[in-house]
Amino acid sequence: VPSIQDTPDQREIPLDRVGITELVYPATILDREGRPRAAEATFSLFVELGEETRAAHMSRFVEALEASDRELSVRGIGSLLGTLRETLPSRSAHLVASCTFFAPKRAPRSGAESLLACPVTWEASLGDSLDLVLTVGVPVMTVCPCSKEATGGPAHSQRGLVSVSVRFRGEVAVEDLVEIVEDSASAPVYALLKGDDERAILTGAYERPVFVEDVVRNVAERLDSDVRVHWYRAEAENLDSVHDHNLYASVERSR
Amino acid sequence: VPSIQDTPDQREIPLDRVGITELVYPATILDREGRPRAAEATFSLFVELGEETRAAHMSRFVEALEASDRELSVRGIGSLLGTLRETLPSRSAHLVASCTFFAPKRAPRSGAESLLACPVTWEASLGDSLDLVLTVGVPVMTVCPCSKEATGGPAHSQRGLVSVSVRFRGEVAVEDLVEIVEDSASAPVYALLKGDDERAILTGAYERPVFVEDVVRNVAERLDSDVRVHWYRAEAENLDSVHDHNLYASVERSR
Amino acid sequence: VPSIQDTPDQREIPLDRVGITELVYPATILDREGRPRAAEATFSLFVELGEETRAAHMSRFVEALEASDRELSVRGIGSLLGTLRETLPSRSAHLVASCTFFAPKRAPRSGAESLLACPVTWEASLGDSLDLVLTVGVPVMTVCPCSKEATGGPAHSQRGLVSVSVRFRGEVAVEDLVEIVEDSASAPVYALLKGDDERAILTGAYERPVFVEDVVRNVAERLDSDVRVHWYRAEAENLDSVHDHNLYASVERSR
Amino acid sequence: VPSIQDTPDQREIPLDRVGITELVYPATILDREGRPRAAEATFSLFVELGEETRAAHMSRFVEALEASDRELSVRGIGSLLGTLRETLPSRSAHLVASCTFFAPKRAPRSGAESLLACPVTWEASLGDSLDLVLTVGVPVMTVCPCSKEATGGPAHSQRGLVSVSVRFRGEVAVEDLVEIVEDSASAPVYALLKGDDERAILTGAYERPVFVEDVVRNVAERLDSDVRVHWYRAEAENLDSVHDHNLYASVERSR
Repeated sequence: VPSIQDTPDQREIPLDRVGITELVYPATILDREGRPRAAEATFSLFVELGEETRAAHMSRFVEALEASDRELSVRGIGSLLGTLRETLPSRSAHLVASCTFFAPKRAPRSGAESLLACPVTWEASLGDSLDLVLTVGVPVMTVCPCSKEATGGPAHSQRGLVSVSVRFRGEVAVEDLVEIVEDSASAPVYALLKGDDERAILTGAYERPVFVEDVVRNVAERLDSDVRVHWYRAEAENLDSVHDHNLYASVERSR
Repeated sequence: VPSIQDTPDQREIPLDRVGITELVYPATILDREGRPRAAEATFSLFVELGEETRAAHMSRFVEALEASDRELSVRGIGSLLGTLRETLPSRSAHLVASCTFFAPKRAPRSGAESLLACPVTWEASLGDSLDLVLTVGVPVMTVCPCSKEATGGPAHSQRGLVSVSVRFRGEVAVEDLVEIVEDSASAPVYALLKGDDERAILTGAYERPVFVEDVVRNVAERLDSDVRVHWYRAEAENLDSVHDHNLYASVERSR
Repeated sequence: VPSIQDTPDQREIPLDRVGITELVYPATILDREGRPRAAEATFSLFVELGEETRAAHMSRFVEALEASDRELSVRGIGSLLGTLRETLPSRSAHLVASCTFFAPKRAPRSGAESLLACPVTWEASLGDSLDLVLTVGVPVMTVCPCSKEATGGPAHSQRGLVSVSVRFRGEVAVEDLVEIVEDSASAPVYALLKGDDERAILTGAYERPVFVEDVVRNVAERLDSDVRVHWYRAEAENLDSVHDHNLYASVERSR
Repeated sequence: VPSIQDTPDQREIPLDRVGITELVYPATILDREGRPRAAEATFSLFVELGEETRAAHMSRFVEALEASDRELSVRGIGSLLGTLRETLPSRSAHLVASCTFFAPKRAPRSGAESLLACPVTWEASLGDSLDLVLTVGVPVMTVCPCSKEATGGPAHSQRGLVSVSVRFRGEVAVEDLVEIVEDSASAPVYALLKGDDERAILTGAYERPVFVEDVVRNVAERLDSDVRVHWYRAEAENLDSVHDHNLYASVERSR
């Protein structure tokens, strides 16, 4: 007896994506040395649905996820998508998975160690081949070049969030993207700083005022010269401290 | 004296979008009869930035918005984007504006009147021509066809959120899209129902069980036959009542 | 025939609050001159439920709200709660209603006018008497006193959000609380500023560096001397620009 | 040289809470057998600030957290608060920490294993003694008793979120509270169910329709007879499937 999901559909409308969203599940994410770290991920999993089928067997998505190792890496994601494409079955399978990566940081003067929570998202599609985008969000500090020039001294600063998405060959670690972003802003931010650290960071930041436009161009320059990266999008958003809205810039490029 | 923003930039990287995000401002949205209704909108406004310029004059975005009538309509948005393109100046200007539209509803038996809060988003770009996408989110009720068949009686139901995006010619009212969605689910939902209303809705919903796949295909069929619509995307998401994740389907089509 | 809700309940457990949450509905809020302004409010409405009754008639909450004028004022809220207490019926009725108030602002040098979106929440209970708390959130700018002293020059600034809650006699306008907060920070923030405005604000802010602790104490001093206010709570949260977490201070006092 | 934070404050206003919020950091949470599991927590940490001191040394909060084992348990939290009270120093210290606990579940017929993501919050204060509240949120399914009676058959169901907070003596595991909640609703929800499971759950749920009022009273009865619990608050919120708002009930009791 065919299930009601497998009933032929008369409307002749193929669907781009059917599946599940907002599933929160344990996962692992790899650090630069390839060591797995426990992570808490929010998963969306989809497949294409042909015009001839009424509905997907939704439990198979969770079944595949539960049976997998849930490693958020090129290998782990490729393997999970392969299972989905085969078992649903479908021509293509898609994943969006978000978690937090804790980047290790060391304060510039005191050497105090702490962790920086960076949102990471993997978006992947497996059709004829595997297409994969890795996005990392990094909080930074920006000092306004305009106000520094206007006053000849005091300038306003604020927290910013920079987001970098890449398509790449070989291996790109989350830490690689965190470093690229931190080098592109006025200064990094930290969970733990002592008195001398704050002074050092502030002095450095004032010598390097940046607009959001500068931040994304700085990121773009670094990614342009990274042979592993064949597509990227960089976005910067300042939680501007003299306005109640944010300032934004973005650029997307491929080789 | 040129401002620091107008300084030539040496990096030769044009930026896709620079501007402001998360600006909450009063606006108006039109109902089906063309009457303006007060709305509270969240605006993002952007322009392209050429490779030769270091940064945009961000205050001009708010200045233009403040000077405009902030009517969220083809006319109002086209006019605002025209001002942005001219005053920043830039080759293209972009807007994303979200607000709530209160769709008037009447309960099926009691006739009790109430309002249904529907999230509305306008996304628009003005380059050589004006490209505009209207998205409306509509909460609905869905009854599961699978569980109805499995038990021969009881079935589980849940709240769903359906989102329809359209590119169109002429005029499409928010209410038009709300109606299309409500006709595509097991039943509409309401802010106010009395005893007889609930019974009538429930009985009707049970006669019309739908998967999320059915919902988007039902919406697609209606939009396929609407000559005003030349592109659409329909998404449905069920807050499934026997799982702790959501079920999802989507389709995107153009003529 | 009694409805199933009115069935006697054997468990003998009175409930503190039963009702509805997350209802988004049009409302009005009064400005300082008492003029109503359109607002979009999120309502929660509750009553106490005696141990003898199984469940409340939930549709009566929306019915009362729909029939009311939904004016978010002492009068409007008192009237709505009176209706709820009478029609449910119950010994006490409660409301939480949140919306945005747009405070009119004028830039210090250019005189440019714009609106500042301030989140407003009314919390009210009607038992033997009406108890009402008005909360207003105000974004501000803060300059760090510590970094200013440490460097002898540059200091970091950031956006902060200050929240003031009051119980009062007579009339307190949202604008009154916005002004108290803005006078208590390093500087106000604005939607629209021109070049000269930014310089003036920044210079003023640098002459007035404040910790979050200073901000809430400044607010407290002002409210201590306001005879209308007989209870308050002030909270300040800095989106600190050298850390990826926020800094916080709060104080609550009654006469 | 005293730091600027330690400067005497002239305003003579003691502050209830000063500290940090929104710090995302790795932590551990214990399962019923006392085994630590990796978790990702959002921390707020505060101390009281005397009227004589201008500001707290905010870096000491993160320093203490970084040096601690960040075990979210009575022992781990008590230890962290002890360090904060001593090193800031202050008369009292406070913590709010939220994370996700993954409760292991087994489907009723197929035996399929999966995890249910439950939000957990610990709120604690250390003054003369340690006061600690554990809150667990549990998604469930509810079937409406009213609609079942009205139609004589079909009833609407929906996802609900039940939240239980307890003050306790001895040990209470997160799993204990999850079980109490699941026993109090129409049915549990699961990440993974197969065909037979859904039918079994649905049939059971229909035999046990509950209002939100019933859910919290069922939870209350169970907690009333649990000698470990000396205070509790139970809240239930239904994502009602025939309305676009939620239905809510709550009760708070102490011995």
